[in-house]
Parts: sequence; structure tokens; C-alpha cells
Amino acid sequence: MTVRAQKVWEEVEIVAGYITYIDLVRPFIGEKKIVSTGMRQEIDRCREVVRLAQEGNSVALVSSGDAGIYGMAGILIECLQEAGCIDIPLEIIPGVTAANAAASQLGAPLMHDFAVISLSDLLTPWELILKRTRLAAEGDFVLAIYNPKSKGRQEQIEEIRKLLLEIRSPETPVGIVREALRGETPQVTISTLEEFTRLPIDMLTTVIIGSSQTKVIGPYMVTPRGYVL
Amino acid sequence: MTVRAQKVWEEVEIVAGYITYIDLVRPFIGEKKIVSTGMRQEIDRCREVVRLAQEGNSVALVSSGDAGIYGMAGILIECLQEAGCIDIPLEIIPGVTAANAAASQLGAPLMHDFAVISLSDLLTPWELILKRTRLAAEGDFVLAIYNPKSKGRQEQIEEIRKLLLEIRSPETPVGIVREALRGETPQVTISTLEEFTRLPIDMLTTVIIGSSQTKVIGPYMVTPRGYVL
Repeated sequence: MTVRAQKVWEEVEIVAGYITYIDLVRPFIGEKKIVSTGMRQEIDRCREVVRLAQEGNSVALVSSGDAGIYGMAGILIECLQEAGCIDIPLEIIPGVTAANAAASQLGAPLMHDFAVISLSDLLTPWELILKRTRLAAEGDFVLAIYNPKSKGRQEQIEEIRKLLLEIRSPETPVGIVREALRGETPQVTISTLEEFTRLPIDMLTTVIIGSSQTKVIGPYMVTPRGYVL
Repeated sequence: MTVRAQKVWEEVEIVAGYITYIDLVRPFIGEKKIVSTGMRQEIDRCREVVRLAQEGNSVALVSSGDAGIYGMAGILIECLQEAGCIDIPLEIIPGVTAANAAASQLGAPLMHDFAVISLSDLLTPWELILKRTRLAAEGDFVLAIYNPKSKGRQEQIEEIRKLLLEIRSPETPVGIVREALRGETPQVTISTLEEFTRLPIDMLTTVIIGSSQTKVIGPYMVTPRGYVL
């Protein structure tokens, strides 16, 4: 959490968000009024935040990781526009997104160009996700995979693995991090492209797939920037 | 800056780093011993940090943005290996990288899949940078461009613009952010793929180039995640 995120609570009257994320910040928010909603109710949640702001309240909308990376910032701006109040003051507080947090637990896999891809096909056609993965692999980007699995999507990460094996070595290092820096002890494993889908992967996991340059150095996964020692 | 980064100074004896970055954290480090080196002396700096750690000192190596994104984490691990002491305890503290910081100033351009590319060709062949840019554009990734210009590289961002115009609309929103969240007031402009290289761009600038879905909503640059309002 950033220093700014830890301090913003002093300036707001209402804290809104998905209940699981509210719980993560509960130690900081004291006795503020809380407006929580369930999962997959992002639009309702933002419309409520906009309504509260239109009434003159100062509202913090909680988003996990970085609100600006697959987070709530975009839909909130769209809802401000919908309500005809795009001029209401808005501060987006950046944070440590899952790719950064996972990388710090693995070593230094993101020292060079990388692509961030979500496997969630709720709002994106699966064919586009596959196309992006293939092109990023052809470009030898390190890949940071968000939402690798959910209850309803178990086979897609396997499809991604097979696609990448057409382009990258089976020995390519793959880092798997669960609950990166959420307060719990993160579960960190370094595997290979050949093997990694045999390990436990779920919604709270971030998968980082190395480029052709990525290697394992001691307990770390590193993509060298190219310095010659 | 994260809460963890602000507190780590209490636990170290020596602070090392490039002098410009040391200056950014000087308010926090008090009377610690400082070991600063000049720009482009990354290897010497890391070897010195390793030497100090081998002597039993607790050393903080300062890196701007996120140490794990084009930062010092990778070369430090390589230097630990070089010195045969990969088992010295190491904590990599993730941070807010320039892409995240710039995105927060622009609105919400990174709500969907994105690629991060550095235009610095000091350690990477320019042809590979161009290839990656082309493939990322074909994959309709939002692009976050690091090191868009330096004194020695003025024309490359123009070459990138021309390449992208073959694939994306000239009206594609492009966000330009200088000194994102470094304490100074950031300079933030939203332009278009057609026009953006006419604006001032330098080493301290991050450029975010929209995908086919990115749009301008009021004062914000937004890549909708796909919610239907």
C-alpha cells in the first residue's frame, strides 16, 4: 500500500467497495460510513459512488492492487460521464499492481519489456486473448498473466501453455505467486513452461512467464536487462 | 512511495544508489551512511552493495519507480551470483512504476491488456524494439513507452509513431506524462497518435498509446474494460 493510500481515509466521509477489499483496508478506515457491494456488481457500485458524490460527499472507492490496472478507475469515469458530472473532482491513487508485487517475490523477472494479459473472458473474447498471447510470445515479451483461472475457467491456462510451447522452450522459467503482498504469506514457486500447470493456480494467483532471456539464478527468476558483468 | 519503502530505512545501515534517486529519499534516511555513484555505473554500484553486504552491513539500494521494473533488482541479483553469495538475504520492495503513475494522472488507460516497452537501445537492439512495438500494436495492446527520448535518441519516438500509424487510427489517444508523482507537479497532456511527437518529450516522460478501444472522456483517457452501461 502506498503512503498516499494509507492517508486518504482522513479526507473522505464514505468508503465504498467490494466487501473483500473493504476488509483489507478496515484497519485504516476507523468509523467511516461503509457502502459495500458484492462481486460482479461493479456498475451498481460505481453508480452509487457517483450518486453519493453528487450529493456532496467525499467518497473513497476501494480497488485491489492498482485501481488503474484492470481496476475500478475506468468504469467509475464512465459512470461519471453517464451521470453528466464528469467535472466532479477525482483523484486516482496508483498502487502496486499484481504483476509488480509478484515480480518482487520472484526476483526480477520484469527487468525487460513485458505484456500484461488477463485471461478473464467475461468481457473479452477468448480468441482475442489467444491472439494477444501469441503476438506477445512472438515479440519475446515476458508475460504477466492475470486471472489465470476461476471456478468457471479451468482449461484456459492449459491452452495458453500449449500455445506458448509452440514458440518458447519448455525450460522457460515460469513464476507462480499466490496472494502477492496481501498481508498473508505469499506462496511463491518457480517452475517451467513444460510443468507449471501441474501446480495449484486460482483466481488469486499471478503467473509470470519468462522470455527467451529469463533464467533462474539461485532462488530467483531474473530477466537480465543485458548488462555484461 | 509505499509504506514499506518509507519504513525500510529504520532497518538499514547504508543507503546506496544513483545520486539523483538518493536525493529523492533524503528526507527519510536521516544520518545514514550514503554510497552514491553516477549514472550508467549500475554494475559498479551493485558490486559495491554486494561487497558491503558481504562485510555484514545491511544496505538499501535505491531504485526509482519500482526496483523490479527496468530497475536495479536484476543486476543486483546477477552481482550476488558473480560474487558467489546468492544466499545473502535480499528483500525486493515493489513500488509504483512509471506506467502505473502515468496512468493515474491520465485517467484509466490501463484498464485492459497492455505492453510495456523501453525505447532505450543501450542494451537492446533497435530492431527488436521495433519488432516488439509492431507485434504489440497488432495485438491491440495499450502501449506504455519508457525512455521515449534521451539526448542521444531524438528520432526513435518518431519512428515508433510512423510504425503505429500503419496499424492504428491517427485519432488514437496518446497520453504524455512528465515527472509522474515524483513530488513535482506532473505535466500531463492527452494528444493523438497523429500529433503527439510535436509535444515536449524527454527522459523523464512516459508515453501511453491507446488501443483501438481507448477514448477520451472529459479530461480523462480511458480504455474501457467492456462493461455495458
